Amino acid sequence: MTTPFQFVYEFNQERVDGNPEMKDLLGGKGAGLAGMCSIGLPVPPGFTVSTRACTLFHQNQQAFRQQVWPEVLEALHRLEQVTGKPFGTTPRPLMLSVRSGARFSMPGMMDTVLNIGLNDRIVDDLLEQNEAADLAYDCYRRLLQMFGDVVLDIPRRAFERILARRRKEKGVRYDIELGGDELGRICEEFKALIRDEGGSFPQDSLEQLRLSVEAVFQSWNTPRAVTYRQLNDISEDLGTAVNVQLMVLGNRGADSASGVGFTRNPSTGAPAMYGEFLPRSQGEEVVAGIRTPLGLEEMKQTFPEAHHKLQEYAATLETTYREMQDFEFTIETGKLYLLQTRDGKRTGVAAVRIARDMHQEGLISREEAVMRVNPDQLKQLLHPVLQHAGGELLAEGLPASPGASVGQIVFSADEAVSWAQKGKPVILVRSETTPDDIHGMNVAEGILTARGGMTSHAAVVARGMGKCCVVGCESLRIDEKKKEVEAQGRTLREGDYISVDGNSGKVFLGRLQKVESDLKGGLISEYLGLLGEFQTLKVRANADTAQDAQKALEFGAVGIGLCRTEHMFFAEDRLTVMQDMLTASTAYAKDQSLKKLQEFQREDFLSILEIMDGLPVTVRLLDPPLHEFLPEAAELSSRITELREKGVEETEILRMEKLLKHSAELRESNPMMGHRGCRLGISHPEITRMQSQALFEAACQLKRMGKSPVVEVMIPLVSLVGEFQDQAALIREVAEQVFQDTGIRIPFEIGTMIELPRAALLADQLASHSDFFSFGTNDLTQMTFGFSRDDAGNFIKDYGRKNILPSNPFETLDQDGVGQLMRMAVEKGRSARPHLQIGICGEHGGDPASVRFCHELEMNYVSCSPYRVPLARLAAAQAALGCQPTDTR
Amino acid sequence: MTTPFQFVYEFNQERVDGNPEMKDLLGGKGAGLAGMCSIGLPVPPGFTVSTRACTLFHQNQQAFRQQVWPEVLEALHRLEQVTGKPFGTTPRPLMLSVRSGARFSMPGMMDTVLNIGLNDRIVDDLLEQNEAADLAYDCYRRLLQMFGDVVLDIPRRAFERILARRRKEKGVRYDIELGGDELGRICEEFKALIRDEGGSFPQDSLEQLRLSVEAVFQSWNTPRAVTYRQLNDISEDLGTAVNVQLMVLGNRGADSASGVGFTRNPSTGAPAMYGEFLPRSQGEEVVAGIRTPLGLEEMKQTFPEAHHKLQEYAATLETTYREMQDFEFTIETGKLYLLQTRDGKRTGVAAVRIARDMHQEGLISREEAVMRVNPDQLKQLLHPVLQHAGGELLAEGLPASPGASVGQIVFSADEAVSWAQKGKPVILVRSETTPDDIHGMNVAEGILTARGGMTSHAAVVARGMGKCCVVGCESLRIDEKKKEVEAQGRTLREGDYISVDGNSGKVFLGRLQKVESDLKGGLISEYLGLLGEFQTLKVRANADTAQDAQKALEFGAVGIGLCRTEHMFFAEDRLTVMQDMLTASTAYAKDQSLKKLQEFQREDFLSILEIMDGLPVTVRLLDPPLHEFLPEAAELSSRITELREKGVEETEILRMEKLLKHSAELRESNPMMGHRGCRLGISHPEITRMQSQALFEAACQLKRMGKSPVVEVMIPLVSLVGEFQDQAALIREVAEQVFQDTGIRIPFEIGTMIELPRAALLADQLASHSDFFSFGTNDLTQMTFGFSRDDAGNFIKDYGRKNILPSNPFETLDQDGVGQLMRMAVEKGRSARPHLQIGICGEHGGDPASVRFCHELEMNYVSCSPYRVPLARLAAAQAALGCQPTDTR
Repeated sequence: MTTPFQFVYEFNQERVDGNPEMKDLLGGKGAGLAGMCSIGLPVPPGFTVSTRACTLFHQNQQAFRQQVWPEVLEALHRLEQVTGKPFGTTPRPLMLSVRSGARFSMPGMMDTVLNIGLNDRIVDDLLEQNEAADLAYDCYRRLLQMFGDVVLDIPRRAFERILARRRKEKGVRYDIELGGDELGRICEEFKALIRDEGGSFPQDSLEQLRLSVEAVFQSWNTPRAVTYRQLNDISEDLGTAVNVQLMVLGNRGADSASGVGFTRNPSTGAPAMYGEFLPRSQGEEVVAGIRTPLGLEEMKQTFPEAHHKLQEYAATLETTYREMQDFEFTIETGKLYLLQTRDGKRTGVAAVRIARDMHQEGLISREEAVMRVNPDQLKQLLHPVLQHAGGELLAEGLPASPGASVGQIVFSADEAVSWAQKGKPVILVRSETTPDDIHGMNVAEGILTARGGMTSHAAVVARGMGKCCVVGCESLRIDEKKKEVEAQGRTLREGDYISVDGNSGKVFLGRLQKVESDLKGGLISEYLGLLGEFQTLKVRANADTAQDAQKALEFGAVGIGLCRTEHMFFAEDRLTVMQDMLTASTAYAKDQSLKKLQEFQREDFLSILEIMDGLPVTVRLLDPPLHEFLPEAAELSSRITELREKGVEETEILRMEKLLKHSAELRESNPMMGHRGCRLGISHPEITRMQSQALFEAACQLKRMGKSPVVEVMIPLVSLVGEFQDQAALIREVAEQVFQDTGIRIPFEIGTMIELPRAALLADQLASHSDFFSFGTNDLTQMTFGFSRDDAGNFIKDYGRKNILPSNPFETLDQDGVGQLMRMAVEKGRSARPHLQIGICGEHGGDPASVRFCHELEMNYVSCSPYRVPLARLAAAQAALGCQPTDTR
Repeated sequence: MTTPFQFVYEFNQERVDGNPEMKDLLGGKGAGLAGMCSIGLPVPPGFTVSTRACTLFHQNQQAFRQQVWPEVLEALHRLEQVTGKPFGTTPRPLMLSVRSGARFSMPGMMDTVLNIGLNDRIVDDLLEQNEAADLAYDCYRRLLQMFGDVVLDIPRRAFERILARRRKEKGVRYDIELGGDELGRICEEFKALIRDEGGSFPQDSLEQLRLSVEAVFQSWNTPRAVTYRQLNDISEDLGTAVNVQLMVLGNRGADSASGVGFTRNPSTGAPAMYGEFLPRSQGEEVVAGIRTPLGLEEMKQTFPEAHHKLQEYAATLETTYREMQDFEFTIETGKLYLLQTRDGKRTGVAAVRIARDMHQEGLISREEAVMRVNPDQLKQLLHPVLQHAGGELLAEGLPASPGASVGQIVFSADEAVSWAQKGKPVILVRSETTPDDIHGMNVAEGILTARGGMTSHAAVVARGMGKCCVVGCESLRIDEKKKEVEAQGRTLREGDYISVDGNSGKVFLGRLQKVESDLKGGLISEYLGLLGEFQTLKVRANADTAQDAQKALEFGAVGIGLCRTEHMFFAEDRLTVMQDMLTASTAYAKDQSLKKLQEFQREDFLSILEIMDGLPVTVRLLDPPLHEFLPEAAELSSRITELREKGVEETEILRMEKLLKHSAELRESNPMMGHRGCRLGISHPEITRMQSQALFEAACQLKRMGKSPVVEVMIPLVSLVGEFQDQAALIREVAEQVFQDTGIRIPFEIGTMIELPRAALLADQLASHSDFFSFGTNDLTQMTFGFSRDDAGNFIKDYGRKNILPSNPFETLDQDGVGQLMRMAVEKGRSARPHLQIGICGEHGGDPASVRFCHELEMNYVSCSPYRVPLARLAAAQAALGCQPTDTR
C-alpha cells in the first residue's frame, strides 16, 4: 500500500510502515512508535497521519479530505481487524487516542484527545455489559472535556469549574475519588455546557475522529505553539503529524496506571531509570501537575512485574537509540504498554554526566560525547549556589531544575514580564504552570509551583531554559487573585523577596547570598578534557581584576583578551582621585592626581600580570566618555542645595560645584558616538601616558622578579589610521622611557580594536601599523545597525513580534551584516600582515553560534567572561568537528 | 650654467633661465617674472632661488650654505654687471628686493625685505652725492624696519610706534610727509630699537642678503603660513622660492609710484583694466591699507604715458596667459616696470563673467570656460541681497566683496571666534586686517574696515572666502581697545547689530532684511547654459515646502530627491496637533489628530507635486525621534510651575503635564541610534498609514486635474530587509485603497535610504525589494566613523591640529571609508537590479568633491539644497570633463 502519495503510516505487531529516521514525515512521536514496534516493544497498535497531510490541510482542506481521509479510513479498518475491536459499536468497542507529534518535541504545546469512539449509546451498552460505571463515565467525561477544549474551543476552566464544584460537594480532593454516579452526572453537565457554549458533540465516532485529527492540525497555528516555535527557532513550515492509536486504559482500576520515565536521571544524569507514575490515571495526568505522582521505585511494590519489564525495555531503548530516552507508558490491568519514546530533555549537569558516562561505557565515541552537550547547558554547572546559612526555611518541594535564584514574587506571567522590564528580578509563583505562562517563565529568575512533579510542565520547561525551578511545594497556599501566598503561617505578597534553591528544592524567606559553584566535583573539567585537540580556536577571558583573572585561569582561559582599565577607577576611593584629575584647575594638581591614579593602575596590573604569568594580557586604554566618572548634573545640583542647608564647610561645596560645571560641560547628545575611546587619549595624552607607564612599570617589575609578563596594549574605538599612529607612538615613547629608567626590557605588542565599521573597511591600512586586531562586536553591532543598545529595547520587541529580526543581534552575532564586516577585516588585515593575530572581545565571544563563526573566519581566539570560558571552549571544539551539537535542553 | 643641481635661475634682458611653466621650482612669482622677461616686458633684472633650495634649507642648513650660496653669489655678480651697479659700495649702489614666492599664491602670508644693500656708510655717501635725503633715509628706514621685523623678529608695532610718535610731533598724517631730517632721526631710533631688542643689523650687505633669503625660507614655517596652507589644502612639502631683484624706487619722488592692477575687474568681471596706485610709495604700501590708494584711471592725468603702456602690457599679459592677470608695477622717475604677474583671484561673479566673456571673445574653449569656475564660487551669485528701504545709513566704503551680511559687531578676531562659537552672527570691524586676523574673518558673517582699498588684505581674503566685505570706510572712528565705533555721531558697541552691503559698499544701522538675489540678470543661467551635454549626473533638490520646490525649479533641479515630511509638522499650529496625536489617551482622540495631520500633509504634498509636475518627488516618511516634537522635560517643568503661579486654567496645565510625562518617557540615551526612522513606522503603523494616504490622495487629485505627479516614497533608516518589507507592504496597501476609493491610479515607486552600514552591506538583498536607493551620507558618516555630529566638535578640532583627519567628513565625503560602503552598495544593488536608480540626499550632495565621487560611482543623481543646485550641476559637468576646476578664489 506504499504509494508516492502515502499520507498514513501504520504500526502494529504485523506491519510497520515507518522507521525511527522518518521524523520529518512522522514527527518525533510517530517515528518513535514505529521504532519501538520494529524492535518488538509492546506498543498499542495504530497509525500516523504524516506532516505532509498537515501541510496539505493548511493549503487546501478540500484536497485534504479527498486524499487523506480515505487512507485514514483504510488504516482504521485494518486496526479494527488487528485489535478485534469494532469502532463505534459494542461489544468491546475500539477507543482511540489522537495525539499530535511534530519533528521537534514541543512539550505541552500541541493537543490531545483521548477515548475517541465513545458516545451516549456505547456508554449505556458498556454499563449494561457490567463494565464498571466509574471507568465508562470517567473515560466519557475525559473525551467530552478534551473534545470540548481542543475541537470546540470551549475554555478548559469551564469544565474544571464543574469538576471542582462536584469535588467540593463530595468533599473529595481528586476527580478520581468521585464515584460512577457522580461522573455520570458530570457527563450530563459537560454535554449541557457544550450545548450552552454553542458547540455540538458528535455522537458519530468517525466524525469525532475526523474533527479531532483536523483540530490537531489546526492547533499547529495556535498562538502558544507559534510562540514556542519562535522561542526555539523551529520552522513554521514543518507541520505536525497526528498519531491515532488504540487506547490502553491506565484508569481501568487499581491494577492500572500511567506514567513517564527516563532511562537515566534527567536532573543529575545518574545512570538509573527515573520517573513517575499515577495509579488509575490516564494520559497526561502525570505531567499535568494536578495530583502529585509517585516515584518509579514505588512501582516495585505495587506493580513488581511491570517495573521489571520497564527496566528491561529502558535498557533496550538506550542500546537502540544510543541516547538517554524519555518514554511514556501505561499499565492496563497489569499489562505494560509503551506509548512513546524520544531523546530525553535534561539539565546541563545531566547532559554533561550522561555524555561522559556513555563515552566511558563505550556506548558513544569521544566526538559524539563532545557533540552531546549544548554549550549553553554548561552554564548550569558554573552558576553560583545558594548559601543556606541563617536562612528562614519557607517550604520544601521537588528540585526540578538546578540553580539558585533570589527575587521578588509575582503571581502571573504578565506581571513577571512587566516587572522584569523594569529591571526587577522576579520569581514566578504559580499553583501550576501551563503553556500560556511561557513568556513569564522566560523572564523570571526562578519558578516555584505548589503542584506537579519532576515531569510537570513547569519542571520540563524550566530545565529546558536552564532556569532554577522548584515544583510540588504542596505546603504553599497560593491565592493568585489576591496576589498572596501563605507558608509557615506567614503571608507573602507580590514584590516580597524569596530565595529558591533548585539544587535542594528548598525555598527561603528574603534574600540569601549566592556563592560560587564548586564545579561539581571535577565533572566539568573531566568533560572538557574530552575536547583535546578538537579545539583549535583559543579561548581567553575578559578580566579586569585579579579575582576575575584567577577564575579565568581555573576555567581554562589561555590569556586575557580584554582588561578594561576604566573599571579600575570606579571604586569609591579611586573615583574621587579620577574626579580630581578631570576637574583639576592647575597643571600641578592634575599631575598629582595622575600620579595617584598611576599608582593604583600599577598595582592592578601587577597582580593581574602575575596571575597570568606567561600568558598574554590585552590591556585596553581608557574607553568610556569622561562624564561617566562624574555624578549627573541634576544629582549634583540637589546635593549642593542639601549641603548648603546643612551648612557643610565651603570647600566640599566648592568641590561639588566644580564637578557640576565639568559634568555639564561634558554632557553629550549621543555619548556612545562622542568623546570616548582613543579620542580621549588623543585630546588628553596625559591619560594614555599615565596608563602606559603604569603598565610597563608593572611588567618590568615582574620581569625583575623572574616572571614572564606578556603585554598587549589595545587602542579602542579607532576609525582612522592616524588615531592609531598617534596613540601607538605615545605608548612606544613611554615604554622606551620605562625600559631606560628600569634597565629592563619586555616584549610587547600594540593593537587596535575593530569596533567601528570604518576600521573594518580600512583594515588593510590599519594592519600595516597594528600588531593585532580585536573585534569589539558590541559597538560594531551598534554602529552597523545604527541601534543604540540602551534604547533599542523600545522597538526590538516590535521587531520580534513582526518577525523582522530573527534574534537580538546583541546576543547572537549578526553574521549577515556585522559578520560581513568582520570577514572583510580578517581578509584585508591578513592581506597586509599574513600572520596578524585576530580575536574578539565583545559579549559575542561567549555565544556558541558566534564562536562557531569566529572559528570559520580562522580567527586566533575569542575572549569572554570567565564564566563563559568553558562554553566557548566547547563551542570551539564543536565548530572544529563541523556539526551542530545535540539540543537536549 | 644649467646643471642637474641648479638652485638659482636668472632673468634679465639678456638671459632667462626659467619659464612660466616652472611654478613648482620657481614659485608663482618667479615663474611670472621669467615669463614676462621672455616676452620682452620691462622687468627689473634679478634671479630666483628655487623651492629646491628651500627644501634643502629645511633639511640641512650646512648643505644649503655650501651648495646654494655660491650660486647666489655668482648670480649676484652677473646682476652687478647687467645693471652696472655695484652691491655694497657707491656710487649708484645696487639695492635689492628679496621676496618670497611659493607655488600657490598666499596673499600676505610670506615676507619681504626691500632696499637691501644700504648701510650707514652708503647712506652717508648717497647724501654726499646730493641724493635727496628723504629718499635715502626713507629707503634706509624701510630696510631697517623690514629687516627688523622679518629677519630679527622684532614686533612690527614697535617700529610703527616710533613712526606714529614722530608723525604726531610733526602733525602729519602719513610717513611720506615726514622730511629727510626727520627720517634720518627715525633711522637712528630704529637702529637703537634693534639694539635694545637684542638684535643686530649687519652693515655687511652680503650678510643682509643671506639673512634675508634664509628668513624668507624660515617664514615658510610661521604659524600663520601653516594655518593658511591648512585652510587652503596646500601641501607642507612644496616650499617657497625667493626672488632677488633690482629695486626700482616708487618712492623716488613725485614722478614715481607703485601700484597693483588686474587685467579685468576682479569684483565684477567687467572687461577693463582695474587697479590702484600710490604716488611716492614702495612695495606693499598699496595693499597694506594704510594710505587709501588712487584708482588707476587717475594715472591718466598724472602718468599718462605710463598708463598707456600699462594698458598695452595688460593686453599682452591676457593674450599670453589666456587668463585674467593680477600684476604689480612700479614707476621710477616716469619709467614703468612690471614686478609680478599671476592669475588674478576674483569673486564668484567675476569668475563667472570672465569665463563667459573669454569664451565669447574666442580666447578660451567651452570646456575651458566650464573648468574656469570653482563651483563654490557660484554661491556668491545666489546669495540674498540687502534691502535698503528704511535703513539708516551709517557709512559708505568700497564694495570689496559682494554679498549681504547682518550681524553683531566685534572688534577682534578672537572675539569673532568666541561669539561665533555661541552661534552668534558677527561682523568683524577693524581699522584694517592683517594675516593674524584670518581665523576671525573665517567665522564672521561679514567684514568691515576703516582703511584700505579694493586690494587690501581684508578685501583679497574676503573675496577668496566668498564673504561680504566693505573696506576703506574712512568715516568710521574705531577704538578697538574700548570696543567702540563712532559713525554719524552715533557710538556703537560690541554686540550692536549692523547690516553690511558688499555689493554697494553701504553700511546700515541695525538689522535690515535680506532678499533673494535676482540671479544677476541671467549671468548665471547663461553660464550654466555652457554645461550642455557635459553634465550626465542629474541634480535634484532637497525641498520640504512649495517655496523651496519653486526655487529648486528655478535653479535647474530636475526633481526633488528629498522631501522631509517631519518639517511639515514643526509649524506652530501643526506642532500642537502632532503633540495631541503623540499623547492621545484614547484611540478616538489619536484618530482625530491623525486626521488633522493628514489634512495638513495632503495640502503640502498637493502644492509640491503640482509645482514639480512631471518631475520625480521623493517623499521620505517621518524620520526623527518623536521626542523632538515635544518640549524638553526641564522646560516643561518650569512652564508648569509658572502657569500654576499665574493661576491659568487647569486644562492647559493638564496638557503640559501630559506632555511632560511623554517627554520623559521618550527620552533616549543616544537618540541618533534610537527609536526613529522606519522604526517609528513599524511601532506606529498609523503614522506611515496617515502619511501614505495623504500622499496618494494628493497625487490622485492632481492626476484628476490632468497633471502628472511622479511619486517616490522613501523609507528611512533601514538596516533589515524585513523593515523595508513591513513598511512597503503597508504603503502598497494604502495606495491600493486610495486608488480604489478615487478610481484613479498613479505609478509610484518605493525605495530605501542607504544610511546605515548594514544597509550598504546587504544592498543586494534590499535591491531585490526596493525600487531605488538614496544615500543618506550624514547618518552613514556618523555610523561608519562612530562620530556623533553633535558631539564630534569636541575632538575633531584636536584631530585637525594633529593632522589625523584631513577634512571634516561631514562636509567632504570620506571616500576611503564611507565611500567604500557606497561603492559596495552601488555594485551589490545593481547586481540584484541592473537598472536600480541610485541617488544621494545627504548634505554631501552639494559638495563638489562628493559630486565628483558620485559621478564616478555612476549614480543617477545627487540631491541638495536648492541654493546648491547650480554648484552641483557645475561640479557634475566638471567631473564628466575629468579634471579639476581652476581655483581663482
